[in-house]
Amino acid sequence: MHTNLKKHAKKAGQPPGTVIYTGQKRQDDCDITIIDYNQDECTVYEHQKDKACLPFLKSTTNTWININGIHDVELIKFFGEHLQIHPLTLEDIANTTQRPKIEEYPEYLFIVLKMISYNEKTRELDTEQISLIVTTNTVISFQERAGDIFDPLRRRLQNAGSHLRKAAADHLAYAIIDTTIDHYFSVLESISNEIEEVETKLLNDPDNTILHRIHKLKNQMIGLRKTVWPMRELINDFIRSESAFIQKSTHIYLRDAYDHTIQVIDTVETFRDLIAGMLDIYLSNLSNRMNSIMKVLTIIATIFIPLTFITGLYGMNFEHMPELTYPWAYPAVLGFMLLVAGGMLAYFKRRRWL
Amino acid sequence: MHTNLKKHAKKAGQPPGTVIYTGQKRQDDCDITIIDYNQDECTVYEHQKDKACLPFLKSTTNTWININGIHDVELIKFFGEHLQIHPLTLEDIANTTQRPKIEEYPEYLFIVLKMISYNEKTRELDTEQISLIVTTNTVISFQERAGDIFDPLRRRLQNAGSHLRKAAADHLAYAIIDTTIDHYFSVLESISNEIEEVETKLLNDPDNTILHRIHKLKNQMIGLRKTVWPMRELINDFIRSESAFIQKSTHIYLRDAYDHTIQVIDTVETFRDLIAGMLDIYLSNLSNRMNSIMKVLTIIATIFIPLTFITGLYGMNFEHMPELTYPWAYPAVLGFMLLVAGGMLAYFKRRRWL
Amino acid sequence: MHTNLKKHAKKAGQPPGTVIYTGQKRQDDCDITIIDYNQDECTVYEHQKDKACLPFLKSTTNTWININGIHDVELIKFFGEHLQIHPLTLEDIANTTQRPKIEEYPEYLFIVLKMISYNEKTRELDTEQISLIVTTNTVISFQERAGDIFDPLRRRLQNAGSHLRKAAADHLAYAIIDTTIDHYFSVLESISNEIEEVETKLLNDPDNTILHRIHKLKNQMIGLRKTVWPMRELINDFIRSESAFIQKSTHIYLRDAYDHTIQVIDTVETFRDLIAGMLDIYLSNLSNRMNSIMKVLTIIATIFIPLTFITGLYGMNFEHMPELTYPWAYPAVLGFMLLVAGGMLAYFKRRRWL
Amino acid sequence: MHTNLKKHAKKAGQPPGTVIYTGQKRQDDCDITIIDYNQDECTVYEHQKDKACLPFLKSTTNTWININGIHDVELIKFFGEHLQIHPLTLEDIANTTQRPKIEEYPEYLFIVLKMISYNEKTRELDTEQISLIVTTNTVISFQERAGDIFDPLRRRLQNAGSHLRKAAADHLAYAIIDTTIDHYFSVLESISNEIEEVETKLLNDPDNTILHRIHKLKNQMIGLRKTVWPMRELINDFIRSESAFIQKSTHIYLRDAYDHTIQVIDTVETFRDLIAGMLDIYLSNLSNRMNSIMKVLTIIATIFIPLTFITGLYGMNFEHMPELTYPWAYPAVLGFMLLVAGGMLAYFKRRRWL
Amino acid sequence: MHTNLKKHAKKAGQPPGTVIYTGQKRQDDCDITIIDYNQDECTVYEHQKDKACLPFLKSTTNTWININGIHDVELIKFFGEHLQIHPLTLEDIANTTQRPKIEEYPEYLFIVLKMISYNEKTRELDTEQISLIVTTNTVISFQERAGDIFDPLRRRLQNAGSHLRKAAADHLAYAIIDTTIDHYFSVLESISNEIEEVETKLLNDPDNTILHRIHKLKNQMIGLRKTVWPMRELINDFIRSESAFIQKSTHIYLRDAYDHTIQVIDTVETFRDLIAGMLDIYLSNLSNRMNSIMKVLTIIATIFIPLTFITGLYGMNFEHMPELTYPWAYPAVLGFMLLVAGGMLAYFKRRRWL
Repeated sequence: MHTNLKKHAKKAGQPPGTVIYTGQKRQDDCDITIIDYNQDECTVYEHQKDKACLPFLKSTTNTWININGIHDVELIKFFGEHLQIHPLTLEDIANTTQRPKIEEYPEYLFIVLKMISYNEKTRELDTEQISLIVTTNTVISFQERAGDIFDPLRRRLQNAGSHLRKAAADHLAYAIIDTTIDHYFSVLESISNEIEEVETKLLNDPDNTILHRIHKLKNQMIGLRKTVWPMRELINDFIRSESAFIQKSTHIYLRDAYDHTIQVIDTVETFRDLIAGMLDIYLSNLSNRMNSIMKVLTIIATIFIPLTFITGLYGMNFEHMPELTYPWAYPAVLGFMLLVAGGMLAYFKRRRWL
Repeated sequence: MHTNLKKHAKKAGQPPGTVIYTGQKRQDDCDITIIDYNQDECTVYEHQKDKACLPFLKSTTNTWININGIHDVELIKFFGEHLQIHPLTLEDIANTTQRPKIEEYPEYLFIVLKMISYNEKTRELDTEQISLIVTTNTVISFQERAGDIFDPLRRRLQNAGSHLRKAAADHLAYAIIDTTIDHYFSVLESISNEIEEVETKLLNDPDNTILHRIHKLKNQMIGLRKTVWPMRELINDFIRSESAFIQKSTHIYLRDAYDHTIQVIDTVETFRDLIAGMLDIYLSNLSNRMNSIMKVLTIIATIFIPLTFITGLYGMNFEHMPELTYPWAYPAVLGFMLLVAGGMLAYFKRRRWL
Repeated sequence: MHTNLKKHAKKAGQPPGTVIYTGQKRQDDCDITIIDYNQDECTVYEHQKDKACLPFLKSTTNTWININGIHDVELIKFFGEHLQIHPLTLEDIANTTQRPKIEEYPEYLFIVLKMISYNEKTRELDTEQISLIVTTNTVISFQERAGDIFDPLRRRLQNAGSHLRKAAADHLAYAIIDTTIDHYFSVLESISNEIEEVETKLLNDPDNTILHRIHKLKNQMIGLRKTVWPMRELINDFIRSESAFIQKSTHIYLRDAYDHTIQVIDTVETFRDLIAGMLDIYLSNLSNRMNSIMKVLTIIATIFIPLTFITGLYGMNFEHMPELTYPWAYPAVLGFMLLVAGGMLAYFKRRRWL
Repeated sequence: MHTNLKKHAKKAGQPPGTVIYTGQKRQDDCDITIIDYNQDECTVYEHQKDKACLPFLKSTTNTWININGIHDVELIKFFGEHLQIHPLTLEDIANTTQRPKIEEYPEYLFIVLKMISYNEKTRELDTEQISLIVTTNTVISFQERAGDIFDPLRRRLQNAGSHLRKAAADHLAYAIIDTTIDHYFSVLESISNEIEEVETKLLNDPDNTILHRIHKLKNQMIGLRKTVWPMRELINDFIRSESAFIQKSTHIYLRDAYDHTIQVIDTVETFRDLIAGMLDIYLSNLSNRMNSIMKVLTIIATIFIPLTFITGLYGMNFEHMPELTYPWAYPAVLGFMLLVAGGMLAYFKRRRWL
Repeated sequence: MHTNLKKHAKKAGQPPGTVIYTGQKRQDDCDITIIDYNQDECTVYEHQKDKACLPFLKSTTNTWININGIHDVELIKFFGEHLQIHPLTLEDIANTTQRPKIEEYPEYLFIVLKMISYNEKTRELDTEQISLIVTTNTVISFQERAGDIFDPLRRRLQNAGSHLRKAAADHLAYAIIDTTIDHYFSVLESISNEIEEVETKLLNDPDNTILHRIHKLKNQMIGLRKTVWPMRELINDFIRSESAFIQKSTHIYLRDAYDHTIQVIDTVETFRDLIAGMLDIYLSNLSNRMNSIMKVLTIIATIFIPLTFITGLYGMNFEHMPELTYPWAYPAVLGFMLLVAGGMLAYFKRRRWL
């Protein structure tokens, strides 16, 4: 987040529409994949150059152009020129600090998505921005990094009978959104595992790392919320949009995707509540442990302090202490001490401290 | 929840409308019951095969087909084909992670309900999904497990004079929803018992299990909220729906059911507040107990530490300590000690520590 | 609440419109009072039988029929038959778990109110349900118990010049609602007394009962909120209703009653905040007391533990301790001890512990 | 508040429109001031009788009649009769428990304001109700007590060039509201002083009075909110009103007054947050102080308890303790003790307790 | 804030439209810069007198007049006269306590912005008010102080190809707003640095200053929220405005600026959550430290108190204590003590205190 703010801050005063890449520095080339399909055929062209895309932009078949890597600003500008894309859109594609949103332009629909992945080892969330340009029969998708979550989509495109093959480009856009949202569930599953693990540890064997794990989960929920709520808005705007690029038949599918985001939001909110509850338990445990520490101290101290006083009493060096000379005095004092200790123990028992 | 997220996660990238059962694995057969009725007659056919349903789907009498068990995906697809049900609906029937909702299709109404039951022994909440397909004169209900909460409904159907017999299929759908909501009250009653029990224990005999019971109740309220609020929306959408399958005369009954969900929500929110209050009391109790432990320690220590110092004083081995030789010195010191102890006790009394 | 949930739960699966009394069991007879009035006359008939009401239902004069006690289900059904009241309304009259609400039927208005009373001795809130059936010139009111809060209303009816005598039945309904709301203020006054009492006790002489009194107040506010907010909705619905039974001239009075409910809600919310503040103070007091206990212990211990160490030092039995033989050693050690103690006290003074 | 609730409670069952003064008992006479003005002239008549107002009510010049003191119920009724004011309005003027509001009647506008003042000595907030009756060219204002916050307004009226002189009566009503709201800022300034004072004291020299001052500020914010939010609604209703008494040209001024109430609300909410933060700091300070007390105790105890044990060891009276006879034993033990104490101190240093 | 309240408070009772400067006292002159531009030319005139602006107000080219310093009330009035600006607007320009807002007048648009800067050394936020008067081809901007954040804007104006040069005055107004908002990101970046620093310190090396830094951050977030939310409203009102001064082509840019404010708000809210989490950690740390202090005390005390009791026992001076004479008694007692200490240590190990 810090890096993004810095980049954003540096843009202050620059004209809107300035295309600046705001993600992490990268050296590798951007990779273009073209999938051209209609009801009858589907061809995949991998590792293409930018100019190879031009014929597909004008063809009557449906085309999905996927670009992995958005650090090549010239590439973004290339598509901007050939598709008459508004400079503000190009700026948003390169700037990875966008919120998920949908924007309607007369020439295209512009959609920004956030894909989330969870690193099981470091227990860190990672966010990646995916931008879509949708026209009647073309979808251009920009991803920050190469990833494999869209592989099942490609396989469905290659399956001649699939609904995806028959439908227009807006259905492909929907499918990309839907796949992204479905991916949230696997992230939530990983987090759910972590929550269960932390909860088990919390109840059985709490230590100092627990607080930091709870704290991290809490911050991750803050981050997830910030991402998921706009996804819901985005799909809602998608449904209510009257853009010519959206077929009526897609509405029912969008409603389904909307239901899924609501489920994601519900789960995130539930996790928040669960995590808040875990923090409460952690703090109660701290208090409980303090109580039990104090109990031990108090029991030991209240038993032995009076006894030590008695031994001190008969350790005094007064010349005239008649008790000291009686032969039965020592055993009597020992007995009295036992009595005192027993009384104390009985008192603690009654107070349920033992 | 965990299991459901896993299942959902695995569906990522699959085409929408893929019918996959996401509940627990089950071996037993799905069980079909057909109740065919009109104002004059009512016949119950139990343990039927799927094909036995076909004639009823086309008859002019009202028919309620209840399927216990949704793990037989083929069965769901069977009804999907014969009733022209949208693949997304079939997917939702089999996928038990749905939120309660109502969806209008030209051919039918699709309703998803959540039934909740409370296991008195384990004090766990259990959620079951019930899906309804409603057409003009047919209701098909899919339950996850066989259950008996709809038995009173069947008896009402067999009662010739009942309003249910005379009304259209939408009234049967209402009756199923209403029965489900009424069942929430019995769950709330059980939870109310548990709350009272915990509260009594909290005030009289708090121990370590209390915190976990409060925590469990809190999490159950989180779960209940997640289920009940969409039920309210569902009925609201039902009332405002302009679907041809809903008779005007049913509105007044739906309004009644709406009032009931509001009562359930009110009660859940009240329980949440009560449980939050119990947690406050628990934590205050912890602090109070700590206070009383510290008081005991402090009283004992502040009385005996100065006394022990005095005994130490006269236990020193200096050769020139004139006090040691006076015969009245020992009793004088004893008396002084009593004075000190008495003064301390008086101080504690004034401070209300005793 | 518990009892009500139980009753409600048992109704699950029964046909809607089943009239079951859900309050506490009662043996005494229901008591009917009829007040027949118009601009010129007003006659009160007490302790009537149900059939005595019939002529009044058809007369052109205004009639207020008040029934104390709703445990006689047959009585409710009797009115239901003669006034063509919908079964759901009859069910709601007998079922005391309703939220305050107004429902419009073509033949009548149905209003449910909650009256609240405060038992000064047990400091308990008591809720009673009042149901009104309003037609053009008849108001039928059902109370759970006989009560005297409507006595001033009767007196106003017997006063020939009162606006109430001249107005239609809807004004009487308004007057009943207004009287009920005004009664909330007297309950709030009692609670305000209790809050002041608890606050005074909290600041001057806090003990263990304080927490339970704060907790009780908090739970009572939870209960009050649950009752008052729907009262506000009810009056709002009343104002916006376009029912033929409501005269335009009554609107201005309803607006006044609406203002009163807002005042009640404001006061309840203010009380909630005050009570939350009291809980904060209680907990701070606990911490403060702990601090002062710890201070006493620490002062005593840190002064005497070093001193006791010194006495121990010269209580050792080594043969070669030259200090022991000097005549000035004992007074020197005593002086040193005084110095140590004085230094400690000065340190505590600087730290503001004394 | 308590007194008001009592008065309100006693009104239960009385007919609406009963004019009862609910403020504190007062003996002094109500004082009437009449200011008659138009673009050319402005005359002030002080200490008038009620009948002196009558000619002005019918004149074509603008008239502001200000009544200090509303405990003379007859006076309120006098104006009620001559201006055809609705009984409910008269009741509201005398009843000082109203919320700020605006009510439109065909014959007049009725506005209730709350003026707040802050007593610097007792640090108490004081609320006073101001009621306005606005017609085309008359404003009648009822104040609970004589006050001087409207003196600048009078001076502006006597200034021939002022916009106020030229405008209709609604502008005078606006000016009264605006002056009242501006007065809130001086109250907020006083509270801001108190907050800064408490914050300084909290950071430098916290004592027991701090908690009560924070608590008082918190309760004052609760009270202010209850007053300010309805002021905002009132002005909003004023702006959207379509009453014939409001000139279009006044709208722009009302919008300005609206902005001011928003600023007051913003400041109150900010103060609430600041005060909540102060409470957090107070509680953290308590914990910090406890920590430092415990540290002192622990350092002293853990250093001297082991040492005292050693002295006890060599204070035992066993006959066969060879160490006691070595001449170097005493210095050796002393040295060992120094070592133990030094080790402890080093340990505390490492733990950053020193 | 305090100063502003004071100034505002003193204005109570004064006629609306009184132009009073409410910022800090300043001696230096106000500085006027005029930038006159159209598609072909752009000329900058620095350090102008007020009268020099007059010709530009009437020219057909676009003009941006920037005034640094608003403490010269006469200057504000000068523009007020020549541009027919409403007195309320002039009052708002001089009064630096405004909330961000947009107001439409027939002759001009009035926009109030808040610019925020962060002082890295004192870690204080500083707020400055910027007011804009926008007509068809003139923008007059009033700044409290000279600042350089608009320098990039000037450079863009001097760049012949820029969109800014070609567009109408409303686009310049947008550019000023956009630059102001972009400046928020650099403030947020600085705060993000401070948050990270505090978090690192909190986890590794918490001390007493931490609480004050967290507290300061919290108060800064309170202040930022108060500023940012109205900025969002302002742009929203700007977009929905139907004023003739706003070109349709500007809408798409305003939508972009709106997205940026949403991002700012999102970040502020996220920071609030993070800071709240840090406070939780701080308090848990306090409790944890208390626990570890208590543990050390308890371990030391519970090991040595019983041992000291034993030494006291054999330090008693009874004549008849046979144990004292046995040669093996001393080593036996030492051994027993070792056993007791070892047992205690084992107990602590089992309890995980070591």
